Amino acid sequence: MTAPCCQQLNLDEKTRQDAHQRLVSIRGHVEGVLRMLDDEKIYCVDVLRQLKAINGAVNKVGEKVLRSHLHDHVATAAQRGDSSIIVDELMEILKYR
Amino acid sequence: MTAPCCQQLNLDEKTRQDAHQRLVSIRGHVEGVLRMLDDEKIYCVDVLRQLKAINGAVNKVGEKVLRSHLHDHVATAAQRGDSSIIVDELMEILKYR
Amino acid sequence: MTAPCCQQLNLDEKTRQDAHQRLVSIRGHVEGVLRMLDDEKIYCVDVLRQLKAINGAVNKVGEKVLRSHLHDHVATAAQRGDSSIIVDELMEILKYR
Amino acid sequence: MTAPCCQQLNLDEKTRQDAHQRLVSIRGHVEGVLRMLDDEKIYCVDVLRQLKAINGAVNKVGEKVLRSHLHDHVATAAQRGDSSIIVDELMEILKYR
Repeated sequence: MTAPCCQQLNLDEKTRQDAHQRLVSIRGHVEGVLRMLDDEKIYCVDVLRQLKAINGAVNKVGEKVLRSHLHDHVATAAQRGDSSIIVDELMEILKYR
Repeated sequence: MTAPCCQQLNLDEKTRQDAHQRLVSIRGHVEGVLRMLDDEKIYCVDVLRQLKAINGAVNKVGEKVLRSHLHDHVATAAQRGDSSIIVDELMEILKYR
Repeated sequence: MTAPCCQQLNLDEKTRQDAHQRLVSIRGHVEGVLRMLDDEKIYCVDVLRQLKAINGAVNKVGEKVLRSHLHDHVATAAQRGDSSIIVDELMEILKYR
Repeated sequence: MTAPCCQQLNLDEKTRQDAHQRLVSIRGHVEGVLRMLDDEKIYCVDVLRQLKAINGAVNKVGEKVLRSHLHDHVATAAQRGDSSIIVDELMEILKYR
């Protein structure tokens, strides 16, 4: 919940709103799968397809947020002097992404 | 929405209920990220961490459903005589999982 | 090195030869990256691109072997009576693929 | 093969040598799988396990190179003034990694 240094590193406004909108749609997608799972005759592969689509949509949000983070905060790390912290926390996230 | 052949291939009851429960929790997780995104001072990396956690949880559901599908429907495909269809649709899902 | 049960479960001949040929090409690719890495002026991103391509090629082999395994051994597991073992070992491989 | 701008952006010496050494080991691993594939009685799952291990080793090299790139070149992009190019090429690599 904390930026790695004294300076405030916030998600840029446009990306934040885009991510919000996409997450609302993902929530709807999750609810769709919940309804599928109410059906006793649901076929496994249909569930797997929906889960894969949800992961794809979550990755899409992640890519947008990552791009914004790289541009606004990672590319400016040397100027702020917190490259090591910024890189460490990013590598942690990119593991097995 | 359709089983690949005449026979009904349904997700087994226990897995279906487990998946439902996990999806309810994932919906809650998505709603948590939506609340995070209401905060103008949200830090990108915190969002990325949550998205990664959501994907992890979705993959967990997927693994359970996949295991059930492999055991109940793929392992029995030769007996039913629909191996090719079963394998094709599974390979489609496993791509870039 | 051991098939999960009494019966011999071998990689089918055609897939084995195809995999061999692809692996020879992957070895060549690895050697190409080794030569790149001899150059002191190599740019990181060029290395990353090559590594990604190698993983893509390895995944391609994996997909072919997996498809063959699903069709020849997983789809016939119930007939042989070793579904649980076959599914367990497959799930182990599919984790974080 | 080209750095994104006027300045030379090279993989740092230590990472380059480490990557070289790891790639030599990966080549050996690939050769091991080639020998496995000479055996007509090879079991599919043993091949899949080895391919997964190779991908894991390639990812390990990739992580080291990526970390070095992030620290040496991405974190300094704003200073050089090539943030957009640096971020674009990085995002391209991180897709479906």
